[in-house]
Amino acid sequence: MLTLYDFLPSGNGYKVRLTLRELGRAFSFRQIDILRGESREPWFLAKNPVGQVPVLELEDGTCLSESTAILFHLAEGSVLLPTEKLARTRVLQWMCFEQTHVDGVISRARFRRVYPEVVPTRHEEFESWWADGARTLRVLDAHLESRPYLVEDTFSIADIALYAYVHCAAEGGFDLSPLAALRRWFARIEARPAYLPIDEIPR
Amino acid sequence: MLTLYDFLPSGNGYKVRLTLRELGRAFSFRQIDILRGESREPWFLAKNPVGQVPVLELEDGTCLSESTAILFHLAEGSVLLPTEKLARTRVLQWMCFEQTHVDGVISRARFRRVYPEVVPTRHEEFESWWADGARTLRVLDAHLESRPYLVEDTFSIADIALYAYVHCAAEGGFDLSPLAALRRWFARIEARPAYLPIDEIPR
Repeated sequence: MLTLYDFLPSGNGYKVRLTLRELGRAFSFRQIDILRGESREPWFLAKNPVGQVPVLELEDGTCLSESTAILFHLAEGSVLLPTEKLARTRVLQWMCFEQTHVDGVISRARFRRVYPEVVPTRHEEFESWWADGARTLRVLDAHLESRPYLVEDTFSIADIALYAYVHCAAEGGFDLSPLAALRRWFARIEARPAYLPIDEIPR
Repeated sequence: MLTLYDFLPSGNGYKVRLTLRELGRAFSFRQIDILRGESREPWFLAKNPVGQVPVLELEDGTCLSESTAILFHLAEGSVLLPTEKLARTRVLQWMCFEQTHVDGVISRARFRRVYPEVVPTRHEEFESWWADGARTLRVLDAHLESRPYLVEDTFSIADIALYAYVHCAAEGGFDLSPLAALRRWFARIEARPAYLPIDEIPR
């Protein structure tokens, strides 16, 4: 069986959880306590020298890291990844956009607010993230104004990757209330049969 | 012909330049002065609502953004991207690693040192980037210790993506001199016939 090394509040881990559930793949969930440094222990560094979750261990012991790469690996050949070349490029483009502008900004603000004891944060840092993140959320909301999903009107790993940290942006101090298209898109994703909230351990 | 909207010192633009040259694709190079806000002008935002270079405009006017997505789009079906599934995943894994740990850290330190007037930077920020970046460079150097290239002993877009900002890490205050495997890998890439330095406008 697949083993997912993960940390429940991690949006990057959550991307993999949602993808595995959408694909109906069984997996064992292994919580790594990153707050007490478990992802820096030698046994974990042997699986990912970068010392980060999520790591997906395949049946043969191969370990995959970087959520975007894991999602592409899992979704290849499934309905979660289009086959047409430009559509695939758009999927990857949104996922890379997420990595810089959501994971690097919105998710960072959320982590620092939820775990203030881990890294001290100056108010100016939050202000810069709030300004950058608000721009990112407006770009997303404008794109979803006329579309049900991010690419080609079809639910894909791009939607999973963006949803993971955007839906809980309020925990980072971002105001989602004026972003109606974004909230409609949340509801569409949350209505899917395979949906699981971020704080629920997969069984 | 393809048009590349780019900023010469940008490592992300450089990734696209090197890929186009490796593939022997002709392109027109259009410099965007990001320092005076040209990437935030309405005509540019129509090409990329995120307001960032590089943007690659295809013959039919389609605009691609996010360097990782552009590289995958260009390299599909070429020798720069393996066909085997796990090798493709490893290529993307390294490129996502680059986006967070190199572009988000080493490239940021370089930009702030080269253009100190654009964003004021506290010394503590540099110290945090130097520590994180040194770890990243050690991970890369260790991986290249026993391999000529990052994935499957074959030059790929992963090498291009990592080389772009890593080879000029010294401009960000990082010490590359003890990293022998990394420097041998630089030399291998710089010996390729299609090679072009980052500060040379493609003709």
